Amino acid sequence: MCDLCDFEQINISRHSLSHALAAAVKRVCPDVKLGIGPSIDNGFYYDFSLPAGFTFSPEVIDQITTKMKEFLKEDHNYEKSYISFAEAKKMFANEPFKLELINDLEAAGKENVSIYASGEFTDLCAGPHVGSTKEIRSMAWQVDRVSGAYWKGSEKNPMLQRIYVLAFKTKDELKDYIKRREDAMQRDHRKLGAELDLFTFSDLIGKGLPLFTAKGATIRRVLERFIVDEELKRGYQHVCTPPLARRELYEVSGHWQHYKDGMYPPMDLGDGNEMVLRPMTCPHHFQIFNARPRSYREMPMRIAEIASQFRRELSGELTGLARVMMFTLADAHIVCRKDQLDEEFKGAVELIRYAMSKLGLSEAISFRASLRDKASDKYVDNDEMWEKGESVLTGILDEMGIEYTKSPGDAAFYGPKLDVQMKNVLGKEETVFTVQIDFCLPERFDMNYIDENGEKARAVVIHRSSIGCLERTIAFLLEFYGGSLPLWLSPVQVKTLTITDNQDSYGQKVHQALFDAGIRAELDVRNEKIGKKLREARLQRIPYLLILGEKEASEGTVTVRNRDTGEQQAMPLADFIKAVSEEDKTKALKLGL
Amino acid sequence: MCDLCDFEQINISRHSLSHALAAAVKRVCPDVKLGIGPSIDNGFYYDFSLPAGFTFSPEVIDQITTKMKEFLKEDHNYEKSYISFAEAKKMFANEPFKLELINDLEAAGKENVSIYASGEFTDLCAGPHVGSTKEIRSMAWQVDRVSGAYWKGSEKNPMLQRIYVLAFKTKDELKDYIKRREDAMQRDHRKLGAELDLFTFSDLIGKGLPLFTAKGATIRRVLERFIVDEELKRGYQHVCTPPLARRELYEVSGHWQHYKDGMYPPMDLGDGNEMVLRPMTCPHHFQIFNARPRSYREMPMRIAEIASQFRRELSGELTGLARVMMFTLADAHIVCRKDQLDEEFKGAVELIRYAMSKLGLSEAISFRASLRDKASDKYVDNDEMWEKGESVLTGILDEMGIEYTKSPGDAAFYGPKLDVQMKNVLGKEETVFTVQIDFCLPERFDMNYIDENGEKARAVVIHRSSIGCLERTIAFLLEFYGGSLPLWLSPVQVKTLTITDNQDSYGQKVHQALFDAGIRAELDVRNEKIGKKLREARLQRIPYLLILGEKEASEGTVTVRNRDTGEQQAMPLADFIKAVSEEDKTKALKLGL
Repeated sequence: MCDLCDFEQINISRHSLSHALAAAVKRVCPDVKLGIGPSIDNGFYYDFSLPAGFTFSPEVIDQITTKMKEFLKEDHNYEKSYISFAEAKKMFANEPFKLELINDLEAAGKENVSIYASGEFTDLCAGPHVGSTKEIRSMAWQVDRVSGAYWKGSEKNPMLQRIYVLAFKTKDELKDYIKRREDAMQRDHRKLGAELDLFTFSDLIGKGLPLFTAKGATIRRVLERFIVDEELKRGYQHVCTPPLARRELYEVSGHWQHYKDGMYPPMDLGDGNEMVLRPMTCPHHFQIFNARPRSYREMPMRIAEIASQFRRELSGELTGLARVMMFTLADAHIVCRKDQLDEEFKGAVELIRYAMSKLGLSEAISFRASLRDKASDKYVDNDEMWEKGESVLTGILDEMGIEYTKSPGDAAFYGPKLDVQMKNVLGKEETVFTVQIDFCLPERFDMNYIDENGEKARAVVIHRSSIGCLERTIAFLLEFYGGSLPLWLSPVQVKTLTITDNQDSYGQKVHQALFDAGIRAELDVRNEKIGKKLREARLQRIPYLLILGEKEASEGTVTVRNRDTGEQQAMPLADFIKAVSEEDKTKALKLGL
Repeated sequence: MCDLCDFEQINISRHSLSHALAAAVKRVCPDVKLGIGPSIDNGFYYDFSLPAGFTFSPEVIDQITTKMKEFLKEDHNYEKSYISFAEAKKMFANEPFKLELINDLEAAGKENVSIYASGEFTDLCAGPHVGSTKEIRSMAWQVDRVSGAYWKGSEKNPMLQRIYVLAFKTKDELKDYIKRREDAMQRDHRKLGAELDLFTFSDLIGKGLPLFTAKGATIRRVLERFIVDEELKRGYQHVCTPPLARRELYEVSGHWQHYKDGMYPPMDLGDGNEMVLRPMTCPHHFQIFNARPRSYREMPMRIAEIASQFRRELSGELTGLARVMMFTLADAHIVCRKDQLDEEFKGAVELIRYAMSKLGLSEAISFRASLRDKASDKYVDNDEMWEKGESVLTGILDEMGIEYTKSPGDAAFYGPKLDVQMKNVLGKEETVFTVQIDFCLPERFDMNYIDENGEKARAVVIHRSSIGCLERTIAFLLEFYGGSLPLWLSPVQVKTLTITDNQDSYGQKVHQALFDAGIRAELDVRNEKIGKKLREARLQRIPYLLILGEKEASEGTVTVRNRDTGEQQAMPLADFIKAVSEEDKTKALKLGL
């Protein structure tokens, strides 16, 4: 069976299980009114309206579980039939929510209503379903949780009670999922962000707008300086452009026509100046390219910026640092000659691979070629340009021997793109950033250079990132490392803990020496037991803890505790500083001491 | 005579000269119609409407100059008298602009009209004037330029011709002014910005929104890393907050009520979320302070950020990098206990002095205490708080022995401030940034900490910058140094020039060695004469030029040309790299080689 069939089969099975759940609930409490019960990516849910005095208490959930098992054992078939609206309204006369759905279907002009019967339980349902409960009896499932949910998702409607059930093909899959989810919850960057004091939110500032506190901002700064320095080494020129512009700029680029829903509304300053926060940096960098005539000798111009961008997201979709209303992209636009396209594209991919290796994410990423969906009208209309762009993109990838998948319909509105994909801790793949070949915007912005023969020639543009947006990359790093970042990315690299008051002055001395050596250090000379100090410091995932007692103070040594191995060793302070500085400088991924 | 009287006297003299100019113009061409003729800070101007066929050609200006000298020699008194509106209208029947002014005065409910007569020339004028042309005959003046100017400054009115005249008490003062102005024009950061390719503007992006190109962005980055690293050393914590927030944030802070005209209009995202670009960073940093309860042990919290801020300016007031629609402030808010206020304020002033010394601007700055104007209603209404704030501010300055002037009416709406003043190349003083003591916003944001006794205590805030906003500081540095920045601030530090093709490979090697050593370097191996290469490189104000000929290539040396002295010396490449790296690291203000 192919992956896709497999995927559809599990959803059908989950959906059929949801009917069994509803049947069981009805057996426990016939007065419950039915909402809907779809499959979801880890099982299914069903919504119910409960009669007064009845709740889904743990005891009731146990009863429901037992009844559901009985129902599945009874070998019911899932039998589909079509009935008229009149029959349907009669059949579901006591089910107000089903009645509402029947009315909706009628209003939408449907001919009739499809129902599924299995045993005594009949549900309004389009299907498909399995043939019989026999087929799903061996599935592994368990009630996950109960929560309130508004009917049809609207606050204006009544609140129903939703039972979530985890459901997988085998017990191992269910067990594996639960374990991964527990792990993911521990690693959730939102949880880690609060525990490690990396960022916060404020109602007065607004949703989806994280405030990086000192430690989170340190990770940002380290990432930013790393990638800026690396890009400068590779011949990029870093510029600094305003994060807003007149609406006209985005009319020329086409963002206003193709991307308006994702943009903030304009600010009218009068005199025809409607200012808009930028959704992307490209048209800004093109203004720098176009600021004066360019010669073929100046090409390629690799114009880079750590650029803030503003996107309008639905508030329900905002998630910690991963989905935000404003983000900061390690962005660049390589404006080049056509004959330079191959080499520049390769250079961009090589930089990504290098940067990902330094972050320890080489294994976590994969590549995807996102192409145009010819049937859609959301793309710039120029067949020749699309064919050229797509063939160049896949040609280069093939030539470089890069493994990639193809995804029609995921291109940018102006051209095809190479997506850098990452799997999150739950195994779900996401696009974190892209490399794009663009023949379209150079036309729109009339981007030229003077070639060897003194003639005007059209430039080509590669849009690319190197490490993606800082917010999301930090979220990803936190989850990938479960908060235990490599030394060079850790906001606090070393913490000094004194065992008693007697070591205070030695502690101060050690801390100052670390600080002077440029090591990000903290000091704990509180009058607390060393056990408590250690426990608190370990929760902060600091790479090295230095424990200072009488012996260390008298010998001028430090006892180093390694975060990842838990091992301790004593060494002269100078040796420790040298080793840690080296580990920081080389951006080692594993703790070396 | 006191400075103020002196200032008034020169303005009176200039205004009297403007009547002499108008009289002279009338002698040359009686059909000219009179506009107005006020004094300005380098002389005066007078506006005229010219009859068809008559222009202010150089020859005509010469005639006018001669006639004006004659008029001054003729010893006319300036005689003031008051006449009725009827008389005035009769007297100025042939002067349509004067008639309009007379009507304006009448409409404003004035009783009568004041005129000044000297010789045959009578002008509608409130005065005051000198007694006689004798008093101003010895003044040094010369026609500066002629330009068009709309009557009453409005595009809807007729265009008049304006004659600008420079006028000073003595010839030396006039000469000195002209010299300083020529110098200033050479040093104008807008001119240097274009010549050195540091920044550009784009009509599509908008007015007052500079785009820093690679070299300008390099100066920014060097400044930013310098001050961030210095602040981290001094116990500041650098954070990163969004440059926009819900309107409610600025209602709590009071910016919405007191500062709305300077802010961008809100962006309505629906659901009660009106987002506003921030005019200042303080309320954002206070959200970080308030994110969790604070203990007296955590105080002071020195919350810093390189923060973008948005201010609405009249488009006529926008000037290069000095007056912009968005800027980037090296900002911080020190949240402290009252008993820490003195020390923290001193620390802020010390950091400013240190940073200014590193930038070479110690002599260019001075301090001013800006206090409340009690008569104005633009300040937060709390007398006790103002008295406390002002006495603390001046008390600390006196204690530190800092020289300062006082300026009532220049305080922030929420508290008094210490202004850091800089004189620009024309000698005009401007406030570049401030240190402010604030008892007001901690009340508005209910900013507390738990003191030694476990009780809630109110925090105090110091708002401060260390090097001001990057845009303006760069403008100032460019003008101060006339574009010849110290090595550590120069976007390109060394440029390698080859004399002939034979040195190409040695040139590449030298350039690569500089690049690898982290020196910002350029290479010119074009097939051009060395004279041309040198000329072009010198215009770029690059600190060191390396000239490579056969001798250098064979000996492995470089011939170093010092930008500031023009001197040249040969040395081994390794020695040069070592010396330049050291000069960069120590942030030397003068070129050492």
